[in-house]
Formats: sequence, structure tokens, C-alpha cells
Amino acid sequence: MADHSFSDGVPSDSVEAAKNASNTEKLTDQVMQNPRVLAALQERLDNVPHTPSSYIETLPKAVKRRINALKQLQVRCAHIEAKFYEEVHDLERKYAALYQPLFDKRREFITGDVEPTDAESEWHSENEEEEKLAGDMKSKVVVTEKAAATAEEPDPKGIPEFWFTIFRNVDMLSELVQEYDEPILKHLQDIKVKFSDPGQPMSFVLEFHFEPNDYFTNSVLTKTYKMKSEPDKADPFSFEGPEIVDCDGCTIDWKKGKNVTVKTIKKKQKHKGRGTVRTITKQVPNESFFNFFNPLKASGDGESLDEDSEFTLASDFEIGHFFRERIVPRAVLYFTGEAIEDDDNFEEGEEGEEEELEGDEEGEDEDDAEINPKV
Amino acid sequence: MADHSFSDGVPSDSVEAAKNASNTEKLTDQVMQNPRVLAALQERLDNVPHTPSSYIETLPKAVKRRINALKQLQVRCAHIEAKFYEEVHDLERKYAALYQPLFDKRREFITGDVEPTDAESEWHSENEEEEKLAGDMKSKVVVTEKAAATAEEPDPKGIPEFWFTIFRNVDMLSELVQEYDEPILKHLQDIKVKFSDPGQPMSFVLEFHFEPNDYFTNSVLTKTYKMKSEPDKADPFSFEGPEIVDCDGCTIDWKKGKNVTVKTIKKKQKHKGRGTVRTITKQVPNESFFNFFNPLKASGDGESLDEDSEFTLASDFEIGHFFRERIVPRAVLYFTGEAIEDDDNFEEGEEGEEEELEGDEEGEDEDDAEINPKV
Repeated sequence: MADHSFSDGVPSDSVEAAKNASNTEKLTDQVMQNPRVLAALQERLDNVPHTPSSYIETLPKAVKRRINALKQLQVRCAHIEAKFYEEVHDLERKYAALYQPLFDKRREFITGDVEPTDAESEWHSENEEEEKLAGDMKSKVVVTEKAAATAEEPDPKGIPEFWFTIFRNVDMLSELVQEYDEPILKHLQDIKVKFSDPGQPMSFVLEFHFEPNDYFTNSVLTKTYKMKSEPDKADPFSFEGPEIVDCDGCTIDWKKGKNVTVKTIKKKQKHKGRGTVRTITKQVPNESFFNFFNPLKASGDGESLDEDSEFTLASDFEIGHFFRERIVPRAVLYFTGEAIEDDDNFEEGEEGEEEELEGDEEGEDEDDAEINPKV
Repeated sequence: MADHSFSDGVPSDSVEAAKNASNTEKLTDQVMQNPRVLAALQERLDNVPHTPSSYIETLPKAVKRRINALKQLQVRCAHIEAKFYEEVHDLERKYAALYQPLFDKRREFITGDVEPTDAESEWHSENEEEEKLAGDMKSKVVVTEKAAATAEEPDPKGIPEFWFTIFRNVDMLSELVQEYDEPILKHLQDIKVKFSDPGQPMSFVLEFHFEPNDYFTNSVLTKTYKMKSEPDKADPFSFEGPEIVDCDGCTIDWKKGKNVTVKTIKKKQKHKGRGTVRTITKQVPNESFFNFFNPLKASGDGESLDEDSEFTLASDFEIGHFFRERIVPRAVLYFTGEAIEDDDNFEEGEEGEEEELEGDEEGEDEDDAEINPKV
């Protein structure tokens, strides 16, 4: 800035803004005093394409005033909506308690602690006849070729590698899993979602329950997601329900030499004075699924994260949401792949529709799926 | 079929199925007796790409049995989930009563029955300074050119053409509106959503309130959407919450010669015997938004609709859902265009994300928006 003394004690942003504003004012005045420029401007304005906001600008002041009154009402609606979502959260807590006995049974069948009865394990699939025939053929083939091996195989306990298989099937998770994470994840025995207590700030905890293993001493690793269900003061109309706003991990008590989230590198150092070289070892971060338990902190103090960190955090929130909404409630379908095929079909269908509707943005609106209109 | 007598009293589909099944059995037997074919088959099976369902097939019978037990539990979860959505519907009914006083005020401001006070119409927008400057310039231009006209204009009552403007702004609706529908829609004064009473089958009614007009005598046109909140017996895992399954319109009492949903065409008829030609007039269906109140019936009797009708019905359900979830709760934002710009931004953001995540189908999962994880 040319006149630096002017900005003493005034944040430079405000100075810049003030200068811009006064420039705008000057320019406006000049235009207003020149009929030919005015006429040219009028012509340009007349040719501006019709948009909803340009239409609003043409309305008389008294009408604009009434529109402002509607906007005030709309803000009040957003605050009522926030209360609605809090009550939905209460309902989710209530239903979590109803699901829990079924999830406990699921865990027992998976670990092999309990064997399902014949009645409990009856299942008639749609394509049963077909599958049976195909299955017969395959199993006979396998028996022919591998008869000896099969006879030796002991009956495995429960459903081996149940949760690890889900990690493998779901792209969003398998992308995070490194080869050295795999033997650790095979010890994962259950994932639970715990909702915050009534009256507490809205949040949920993902609990990853592990059987005793050679890697760490924790039996449970936790990830807590904090949520916000209130309209943003600066932008109340963008409110669409609770959002994840921050998350917290936990400390993993790694056994000696087993921490996969760090790696040791060797570095040569030259002594400046003596010129001797020595090799030091240094621990640096290592890619691993288990970094999920040591997330970035969303900055609450107004400082903004860089773009990469923003993206990492957004992906983390998405994964947390996905565990809570899809994987934990429907684990067996992600194990068998049925839920994944459904997701694929859904997307294909939607894309096809998009083509046919062309330009019909509202048709693809973000909350369509909540109550998904189908024939 | 060759042996027609065989199918007497048996639906031909079953016969076909039985024939196919016995063919399959024969083929399987042949394969099983031929070691070379078996070996070739084994090789092909080994090269089948790894998919979750092919993995399941390789598991021992005892494990498959436990997976079936998990599937049974999953069906029970789906039925609990259905109850959850019924309670959410109850909550929506409760909150509809809380929104109603605000919506009533909205209607009064729109019709001009009530003028908002100064406090009620205060509004500070984000870009106020900017808008004010731009607005000043434009209004001065307009004043210069059209001073006389503006002075004559009376202050309009309320917010003229409020709902009609929304129909124009929202592509999904404007596509349905014909030129001759426009003067009728200008009489639309309110749209209300009414939820079904507790204990009744789940449904909602859209009420379109019109001021007295030259086109029809009804003061309210209604469209009722029937919903279903229970898992499909044949496919319980596809359950994702309540779905619209059917809808009903209403009779519009058109004034003489004003029915825009039919048109009169002239047709020449030749008398076969006498060879004379006479012109008859005939009423045929005409494209119009008001056909929205005379929808197709979803077939409840197992007869399936043709593809076109399926598509028409699916679009109708989508529109009903959109009125209920977006337009009625946020009308002013569709009037000003703010909601539409938001929808556009949301989609752009999502597309960008899709590119970066590549192959991360779960990231785009259909219920993301319900609780939309953002930074």
C-alpha cells in the first residue's frame, strides 16, 4: 500500500475494502453523470439472461420487504428443523437399544461362541434352485480334485475373518488397508455404534472390538464423531440436518516393534566440524488403516486447514458416517457383497435417469434417497 | 409346445420351468461322468474373478449355515427399521403442526392479507454492501429510462405470482407447465402438506389452494400420495425407508370451455354406404400441468405397466416427494432461486469429489445427504 501510515492500527483488509468501496462509489457517480454510458449500460442490463435473482431485483421495494419477511420466517423454520433432527437422534438412540440384542447374537455367531439352531439358520434365497444346481456342480468338482485336503480341514469356528472380509469388499475401506494391516484386522471381532446420552452434545462413538492379539494390548479402539445440529448463523438456509464437525481417535498401546503407523528410516549425518559421517535412525509416519485412530483435528479456532487436510478430514467423516449408517447396521450384506451390488445398481439406475431427465436438477436432489420414490 | 396334452390344467410357465430344470439335471449328470470335462471346468472355475459372492461359495457348509443365521437376523433388523421410520413419520406430523403457524404467516404476507412489521421484514444479507451498490446503479438506470411508468405503478398486493414464479424456477415443474397453464397457476395462493392421522396407513396430501378464478370452481385441488414402510417379502434387504407406492388426484370442476387438459379436434368421417363426408369433433387429452391431478394408477393387482407408464409414474412420485420435502418447507428459497443455486453447487461439489475418490462407490451412497458429513 502506498500510504502505509494510513493503516496504522487498522487491519489492512479493512483498508483495502474501504478503498474498493470508495472507488466503486466514484465510478458509479461518473456513470450516473454520463447519459451515453447510462444508455449503453441500460442496454446491457436488458440483455442479462433471466435468472431468479435478477428477477427479484426488478421487484418494487414493498414486495422486496415482504420477501425479507418470508426469509425471516424461513430462518425460524430452520431452527425448528434443527429440533426435529435432535428428536430423530433420540429415536435413533431408542432404536439402537432395540437392534442391540440382534447385533449381540450376530457377534456370537461370528465368533463361534454360539451355534445357531436349525430354525435360526433356515434361509430360502430367491434363486435357490439355480444356486443349488450350480453349487452341486462346483462342490462335486472341488471334491474330485481336492478330496484329500477337504477331509483334513477342521470345521472353522464361527465365521472366520468376517469383519476383515467387509474391509476387503468395501472400496472406501480397502483403499486404507495396507498389507501389514491385514493380519491385525483379522482379529477384529465386532464394531459397535454408541450414541451420545440424552442432553449431551450430539455425537457417536465407533467401537472396534479386537480379540487378544500380538499387536496391541487394547481390546477396544474407539473413534468419536462430534455432530452439530443447528443452522449456521452466517448461512442458515444451507442447513440440511446434523453434520459431523469433528472427530477424536484413541491411543493404541502397540506391543514392542508392532506399531504399523510408524516406520524407522536410516539417515546419514555429517559432522560439520570433524567431517565424520554417522547413521541415525528416525521414526516417521507410515501409511496404515490404524491412522484412522489418530485423525487430524478440525480447527475450531477459525484457522483454516490446507486443501489436502480438508480433503482428508472430509473423507474421514464420510467413512465414519458410512460405518454408522451402512456397515454396522447391515454387516452381513457387506460380507456377502449383496449391499455392494445394490449400491452399484442404484447408481447405474440414477445415472440412466439423469440422462433421460436432462437438466432436471431437482430430480437428483440430495435427500431423494431418504424416502426414495420408486414405482 | 410339442406335447400339448401335457400342459392341460398346468400353467405353461411351470411346464417350461420343469423342462429347463430336467435339462439342467441331465447336463450336470453328463458333466459329472466325464473326467476331462470336469478338469476343464475346474480350471475355468479357478480363473473366475474374485467377487464377494464367489468367495462365499467357497466357504464350508457350517460357515454358510451361520451366514444364513445372520441373514435371518438382518431381516428382523429391517422390520425394526420399518417401525423406526413409522415413528419418524409421527415426528414429522408433530413438527408439521409447529411449522404451520409460520406457513400461515407466509401465506398472509404472500396474499397481502397482512403486511409485515418493520421488525418482521428486517434482513441483513451477506453481500449487502455489494448488492446495495449494484442495486443503486441499476435502479438509477431504470428510473432514468422509465421514470414515468414507475410513478404510475401502484404498489402491488402481497408478493404477486409467488407460487407461479416457483413453478417457473424449478425445472422439474416448468417442464410440465404449458403456456395456457400459466394464467391459471397465477391464481395459486398456497400449497400445504397434510400428513395421515396416527394409526392410519402412511400417506400425505398436497393441497393446492386457489383464489376464485375463471377456470374452475374448486378452491382446493388435492393430490394424495400413499406410502409403504415395510420390507418387501421377496427382497427384504432392499428396504431403505418409506416409499411412495401409489397416488390419487381429484376431479377439477372446469368452467365451460376452460378445461386445458383436453382439446377438441375435428375429424372427417366418410359414410361407407352413401359416400358422404361429415366432420365430427372429438375431445382428446391435452398436455397440461393439471394432468398432475389425474395420474395413472399404480397396478396393485400384479399386472405390470408398460415402460413409459412406469416412467411417468416414477416422475410423478418424484415430483410429489419434491413438493413435500423441498418446495413447501422452503418456498421462499425457490422463489428467490437460492435453493436452486444451492442444489447446483451441491451437485458440482459431489461430481468433483467423485473424480478424486475414483471408484469409491460408497462415498456416493444414497443416504449421505440425510446426515451430510462436511468439514
